[in-house]
Amino acid sequence: MKNIFTLLCLLAAPACLCAQEALGYRPELISPVINADGTVTFNLEAPHASSVKVAGPWHESPVAMQRTADGIWSLTTDTLPSDLYCYYYDIDGVRTLDPVNPYVMRDIASLTNILVVPGGQGDLMTARDVPHGNVAKVWYESPSLGMTRRMTVYTPAGYDPEGDTRYPVFYLLHGMGGDEYAWNELGRAPVILDNLIAAGKAVPMIVVMPNGNAQQAAAPGIGPDNFAKPDMKRSVSPAGAIENSFPDIVKYIDSNYRTIPDKAHRAIAGLSMGGGHSWAISRKYPDMFDYVGLFSAAVRWNGGGVDPDAPDKTFAEMAARQFENAPALYWIAIGKDDFLYEFNAMYRKFLDNNGWEYVYHETPGGHTWKNWRDYLIEFTPMLFK
Amino acid sequence: MKNIFTLLCLLAAPACLCAQEALGYRPELISPVINADGTVTFNLEAPHASSVKVAGPWHESPVAMQRTADGIWSLTTDTLPSDLYCYYYDIDGVRTLDPVNPYVMRDIASLTNILVVPGGQGDLMTARDVPHGNVAKVWYESPSLGMTRRMTVYTPAGYDPEGDTRYPVFYLLHGMGGDEYAWNELGRAPVILDNLIAAGKAVPMIVVMPNGNAQQAAAPGIGPDNFAKPDMKRSVSPAGAIENSFPDIVKYIDSNYRTIPDKAHRAIAGLSMGGGHSWAISRKYPDMFDYVGLFSAAVRWNGGGVDPDAPDKTFAEMAARQFENAPALYWIAIGKDDFLYEFNAMYRKFLDNNGWEYVYHETPGGHTWKNWRDYLIEFTPMLFK
Repeated sequence: MKNIFTLLCLLAAPACLCAQEALGYRPELISPVINADGTVTFNLEAPHASSVKVAGPWHESPVAMQRTADGIWSLTTDTLPSDLYCYYYDIDGVRTLDPVNPYVMRDIASLTNILVVPGGQGDLMTARDVPHGNVAKVWYESPSLGMTRRMTVYTPAGYDPEGDTRYPVFYLLHGMGGDEYAWNELGRAPVILDNLIAAGKAVPMIVVMPNGNAQQAAAPGIGPDNFAKPDMKRSVSPAGAIENSFPDIVKYIDSNYRTIPDKAHRAIAGLSMGGGHSWAISRKYPDMFDYVGLFSAAVRWNGGGVDPDAPDKTFAEMAARQFENAPALYWIAIGKDDFLYEFNAMYRKFLDNNGWEYVYHETPGGHTWKNWRDYLIEFTPMLFK
Repeated sequence: MKNIFTLLCLLAAPACLCAQEALGYRPELISPVINADGTVTFNLEAPHASSVKVAGPWHESPVAMQRTADGIWSLTTDTLPSDLYCYYYDIDGVRTLDPVNPYVMRDIASLTNILVVPGGQGDLMTARDVPHGNVAKVWYESPSLGMTRRMTVYTPAGYDPEGDTRYPVFYLLHGMGGDEYAWNELGRAPVILDNLIAAGKAVPMIVVMPNGNAQQAAAPGIGPDNFAKPDMKRSVSPAGAIENSFPDIVKYIDSNYRTIPDKAHRAIAGLSMGGGHSWAISRKYPDMFDYVGLFSAAVRWNGGGVDPDAPDKTFAEMAARQFENAPALYWIAIGKDDFLYEFNAMYRKFLDNNGWEYVYHETPGGHTWKNWRDYLIEFTPMLFK
């Protein structure tokens, strides 16, 4: 390519003036700065503020920033382990985003800024110069739910819709308050999959991220309820609706993608409510999934946990059918501080009582996206091998 | 469906506590409120602030909000015409988003909140209960640019990758500082297309939204430069790079989608820099596009405008070839206050001098997304008819 710039270069001056708003009110101020030693420096211009704090998972409560000069408030963290982090500011009691960092994530009704500290786990959550899969938002018919619904589908690099190669499918379910954006954005699933596949750690696979709210066709802003404020209630589904309608999704995927449509080439996993869905769906259809992942899963029954010594009869019969035809991998992951820990412990005891095999992965921490991204990174390499 | 809620309902209480952050720090505060008379009320909790303003296109400068009670600041606008609006707050000199409105758009490096006033043009920019097209982010090879690049592809409702129906293709290009997200998000192209097609105003078509920055493989956060702060410079391309490489995109689309691969079934349009690209590409390949749309286009040549009476010789020859084989529609739209108005006037005089036909659409306003969304709504119904 020539090293001569086009006429467009000449446009830059007037266009910059015009787009000054779009470039932010302090284009020369950079925040956050990821320092070489793994510390992070935040910079915010707030000349009239009395108190500015930064909130992130590296500290239990928001940390006061120091006013340096010209109304710039700054703070440098300790060295942080390589990872993806969320943060926001508290300026005189108002929760705000960093006005000079355009990278954000939505969790239900709140936005937070994000940053990545590289050099380890964070690298897996960062787009790198590797082959990338495509990501599509597709609408499918769900006769069981009586609506056209939306989901996110990742196809791996090299996927050819008219080619001979067929792929296994991983169904990845979100939690309460989430939607078909959750794993794609908060969970960074496409980036993680690209990186795991490129490194040879995971086999190429299709990843399907449905909307798990039976009464909601699509994410807010996209479906008929758009611009309503997202809340948890939208995730409340009529009894059995998600389990009963799940074959609609599998049928659509097997009809529209180059899949290997058998149990050995299907996985299902989910977080929290989606872990509960994965738990129920894999039990209801014991011939459908050979890989099951329960991430901080809502394993509850009739409002309580599974009584390991006297489980509900129907539940026990279904579980027996599932483990008679046992999945190749049944993986349970949870953090020690998770509010669902005890329910998972009861369920594990029930499995132990029956001699049914599973792999258990216990981590620090609680009911957090940090854990769910880490679980995805642990779980995916074990699939379809 | 049964009216009995699942076990998930029982999860709501603990999960809400856990997700309190995600629900926002004032889940009961609603802002903005779109009132029945088309006024909009903003509400912000900022108990310690001295000055709070709201900035939006309905007023030249940010408007002071009034502190009502309990530290809530409010303002109600006059009646606004139905449309999509961006806004942000200024709290004691800090530019912030509305912390209780999760609906945002990114323009280059800045986020703004959005709202829609319904009842007219705004309805076309709102997802409605109509059949929806799918939207995919796809990676394609560009041998001309020596990289794998990303673009957004909209396929209309009913599109079947293995079906017999073939569709026309509309190539829709962004402006300086933008990327393959711009028309999809700021431009709301998929929502607008869904609504126009459902209303019978536009024919079903594929819409391709490439990344028009020759040196950038993909939007920030997605490509190798991820988490760098987006700026205008990334749009500066080596001379001719975008025009020369455009057939790579057309080839990919014709190879991977059910297209009608001829001039009569291809349109190209773009805003600002993308208008300049559409101008140059349609001239360079006079057999490729039968519909050309220049939205506030950067129609410049050698750094100046086209001299209507003495145009550059090569340019004039290329233009002559294009209009010898004239497109079915050559559409020029611009706002009266646009900084590119004069260059467009010079170019129109050049066309007039030669007796070459075009349709001219002049509007109020300047170089704004409001105009570009409106131009898309005007232009699309004229295609492929």
